[in-house]
Amino acid sequence: MTPIDLSAVPVVDNHCHGLYREQQLADLVAWRRCLTEGGDAELATHHVASTLFYRRLVRALAEYLQCPPDEDAVLEARNAVDPDVLVAGLLRTARVEALLIDQGFPPPGMTRPDPEVAALAGCRTAPILRLETLMQELIVAQPTLNAVVEALRAALADVRAAGYVALKSIAAYRSGLDIHAWPPVEALDAFRDARRQVEVAGTLRLVHKPLLDTLLHVAFVEAARQEIPVQFHTGYGDTDADLRLANPLHLRAVLEAPAYRAMPVVLLHECYPYTREGGYLAAVYPHVYLDLSYGIPFLSLEEMRAFTRAAVGVAPLSKLLYSSDGVGLPELHWLSALDGRRVLGRVLGECVHAGELTADDAQNAGRAILRENAHRLYRL
Amino acid sequence: MTPIDLSAVPVVDNHCHGLYREQQLADLVAWRRCLTEGGDAELATHHVASTLFYRRLVRALAEYLQCPPDEDAVLEARNAVDPDVLVAGLLRTARVEALLIDQGFPPPGMTRPDPEVAALAGCRTAPILRLETLMQELIVAQPTLNAVVEALRAALADVRAAGYVALKSIAAYRSGLDIHAWPPVEALDAFRDARRQVEVAGTLRLVHKPLLDTLLHVAFVEAARQEIPVQFHTGYGDTDADLRLANPLHLRAVLEAPAYRAMPVVLLHECYPYTREGGYLAAVYPHVYLDLSYGIPFLSLEEMRAFTRAAVGVAPLSKLLYSSDGVGLPELHWLSALDGRRVLGRVLGECVHAGELTADDAQNAGRAILRENAHRLYRL
Amino acid sequence: MTPIDLSAVPVVDNHCHGLYREQQLADLVAWRRCLTEGGDAELATHHVASTLFYRRLVRALAEYLQCPPDEDAVLEARNAVDPDVLVAGLLRTARVEALLIDQGFPPPGMTRPDPEVAALAGCRTAPILRLETLMQELIVAQPTLNAVVEALRAALADVRAAGYVALKSIAAYRSGLDIHAWPPVEALDAFRDARRQVEVAGTLRLVHKPLLDTLLHVAFVEAARQEIPVQFHTGYGDTDADLRLANPLHLRAVLEAPAYRAMPVVLLHECYPYTREGGYLAAVYPHVYLDLSYGIPFLSLEEMRAFTRAAVGVAPLSKLLYSSDGVGLPELHWLSALDGRRVLGRVLGECVHAGELTADDAQNAGRAILRENAHRLYRL
Repeated sequence: MTPIDLSAVPVVDNHCHGLYREQQLADLVAWRRCLTEGGDAELATHHVASTLFYRRLVRALAEYLQCPPDEDAVLEARNAVDPDVLVAGLLRTARVEALLIDQGFPPPGMTRPDPEVAALAGCRTAPILRLETLMQELIVAQPTLNAVVEALRAALADVRAAGYVALKSIAAYRSGLDIHAWPPVEALDAFRDARRQVEVAGTLRLVHKPLLDTLLHVAFVEAARQEIPVQFHTGYGDTDADLRLANPLHLRAVLEAPAYRAMPVVLLHECYPYTREGGYLAAVYPHVYLDLSYGIPFLSLEEMRAFTRAAVGVAPLSKLLYSSDGVGLPELHWLSALDGRRVLGRVLGECVHAGELTADDAQNAGRAILRENAHRLYRL
Repeated sequence: MTPIDLSAVPVVDNHCHGLYREQQLADLVAWRRCLTEGGDAELATHHVASTLFYRRLVRALAEYLQCPPDEDAVLEARNAVDPDVLVAGLLRTARVEALLIDQGFPPPGMTRPDPEVAALAGCRTAPILRLETLMQELIVAQPTLNAVVEALRAALADVRAAGYVALKSIAAYRSGLDIHAWPPVEALDAFRDARRQVEVAGTLRLVHKPLLDTLLHVAFVEAARQEIPVQFHTGYGDTDADLRLANPLHLRAVLEAPAYRAMPVVLLHECYPYTREGGYLAAVYPHVYLDLSYGIPFLSLEEMRAFTRAAVGVAPLSKLLYSSDGVGLPELHWLSALDGRRVLGRVLGECVHAGELTADDAQNAGRAILRENAHRLYRL
Repeated sequence: MTPIDLSAVPVVDNHCHGLYREQQLADLVAWRRCLTEGGDAELATHHVASTLFYRRLVRALAEYLQCPPDEDAVLEARNAVDPDVLVAGLLRTARVEALLIDQGFPPPGMTRPDPEVAALAGCRTAPILRLETLMQELIVAQPTLNAVVEALRAALADVRAAGYVALKSIAAYRSGLDIHAWPPVEALDAFRDARRQVEVAGTLRLVHKPLLDTLLHVAFVEAARQEIPVQFHTGYGDTDADLRLANPLHLRAVLEAPAYRAMPVVLLHECYPYTREGGYLAAVYPHVYLDLSYGIPFLSLEEMRAFTRAAVGVAPLSKLLYSSDGVGLPELHWLSALDGRRVLGRVLGECVHAGELTADDAQNAGRAILRENAHRLYRL
């Protein structure tokens, strides 16, 4: 079995997060905390170092930084590099063509402005609008639900003109992907609860399901009208999410709605561990796409091969999109690109070996998944 | 690793659908629409051609039809063959010994009579009775629920004498596999709703859960008394189905009922993606069987290997049954038989390599899954 | 790909059951009934012999007993061995260092005392306290719910001093892993129901969810205070369990509770088929561990490789624990140890091949999973 060589193909990272301004890491625990979705320091202290993801990252960085392959040496070598050089070197080595960046996390104050990243990396950046962040701001600012709805509609009236290439929802982290249509009175009650929370705390974490679902429907109408893709967090994430509610099958009502057929839906993070479910949705709904993320979830190469085999085995290859889901540290975006090409090249090589693709087909499929499908979908 | 050679083993296709009368296809989009479970033309226009299933089918047909391996050439060559020759050639090449045909879909007017197919293919055909279709007819015809129940009982009084080898339920497409026992008053309310729909529309799509479940219990009593297998659609299907409700674990109440222990239950389509769940049920319930379908779902070879490995790894080999789920086009029944033998031969060869089976065991297991288990179960 | 050789590594079997006093088996059906989770004799009569697990066991025992590799010969040879010799030979060959034994099943009268087993096997044994068994006894013995709670608290006041290394809950077999906090009045109503059952039957099968959940919270408080691991049955089991309710994701409320963060949680049986879900929980919660059981579920080698690949691919290696879940027959504990080492050695060898581990790392990871993680977790 000969893998397909995709090493020269630039990647469009269709879903990632900004890079931290600060790239120096105080110690190994601080570094490891960036490499787990578990918030507890005990994980970083005792367990992260024994994940296959971390082992792979340490060895890859040791090679990149020309230092011994142990975590102390790698962190030291990493901290010794000028942050600009680190970012530029990693992202250029990764051949990143474009980064589509979810602006909702980390908070803007912690991240470098996109143009700086673009200049360092020699790539394009484009922002993604996180809906729940916007909704929270509007609920804080507006005295009535009607005013929130109007303000949301106005803010989303021309998403592309506002500079965004996609919307994103983290409903899976809040009240679940089973997004309903609620009677107005329940949305109103939830709005009042939310406003009381604002009055007490000054800020809002929007978890009020009737309110969040109601506002999502407002956004979906706008997205469908403008044919703007909406990315949904699905599957694996931090412990805010109840993984049961992050199963993409819960999106059924949204996917079935004729009014939203013009709204492309991107299921993020290969819906891990629900990849087959996500691939199935991409196979039967014309407007559903499946994101294959090779940075986060933090997985072994073999586990990434497994989800890739499942995805290419059930979904049309025209529906798959590469991403890293990298957050904060450039080595995530970098390793993801290297691993993504390697894993995809191997899995597509297996398809050639099985007689399902020619080598040319496989090369084209690799390019489509790594960049061309994203160009078309996001109109880059 | 040496695959087991099953190429000479005839297959009993324990679940498929009839062949279209009309075998000429207007264009590529028309053909591709037969090769997806998504109803939207956009899928056929833009995405079906990039599925590994479709690529494999095109290449296999090109070899069969002796034409270049591209879709235009294949469709042209396919349309140039006399339909009788096409059907006869494909099914005979596939060594189909018997086709057990779900009569409920496509509608009888669109399909060739079974005896014609049998004569062309040199195989046996046997019909499967789709319960929901019968129930709908009875609800349209009968003025009271009691009359429907009586008529259903009468229609199922001797299923084998009526020529059927099995019953089939598509409850997964309608109200879900969690089939309850309902209070009579709720069944009656649902019946009245259904009758109102009949009065308005002249026909009925039976989705009224208390009514459907109630009538299914009537059918189960008959099936258990006659020891007639009941096939259930599970997992992957068109967008009518809510995949959450098509998880075979929802059948628990039916499987646990002592009254139905004499009713063999066949979980169709390897419950994809719930194959392990289905295999588990086949392992712990004496009357549960798992169908392995190699035509639909539309999957890659590797993905079919994956579900086959899971199925043989958890379920007794005596509980597995080959099928195609082919609908309308003979190339589906044909490719499924070729792929099924190939995938099964490979996976069983891996078991020999692992030291779990002798080569003779593996050959026997292959024959059992491809035909003998079905002979025994359906009393062919 | 070179497998890692773990054949010399002793195993700590972190979850198994006692050995039957009686080791003579009347006939093949009697033997096969011990090798399935399905209670129906029909399975043993017609289907168990065609599972890959059974085929593998027969061949392995034939080699061990130096007899022809067919089930009749193996059973005859097995029955010809003195039971003490059988137990001693199999467990010593398996290099079992310690057996952590769930005392709740089989009933004590059927099993050999642990010290006898320890002496025969030349290993350590340590008991695990099954919570539901204790709870049932207390409900039978105590007239009020308050008295039950007090007695439970007293019985669990010093679990290690009482000789136990862990607690175990089979809530998945009773009312499900979604363990709630119930209003006292509902717990009280459920207690009264349970007591009525005691009055009628003299014994109790505790399935009363508000009562069971309430008592589990009492136990969790004690476990957290003492940092005693609590094992939960998850996934695959006999037909008492509704597999839907045995998904480890249902434990979310328990895992999220700050009060229980000091209570290590062990998800048993690799949560099969929910291994990825279980591995995810072990990756994001510091106190969650994943048990990898190679005896039961009854699976093929390939299926065990698949769950092992998933587990090591998503969870920290420091969170994985070897077990057999063997019940009654020593060949289960024995084959599990052989298979566990073999499967783990193969999968870790693949990680070396992939460049994620060095050969030394892999050897260390194997030792950690087979014994050292358990030593640390259970303070052996």
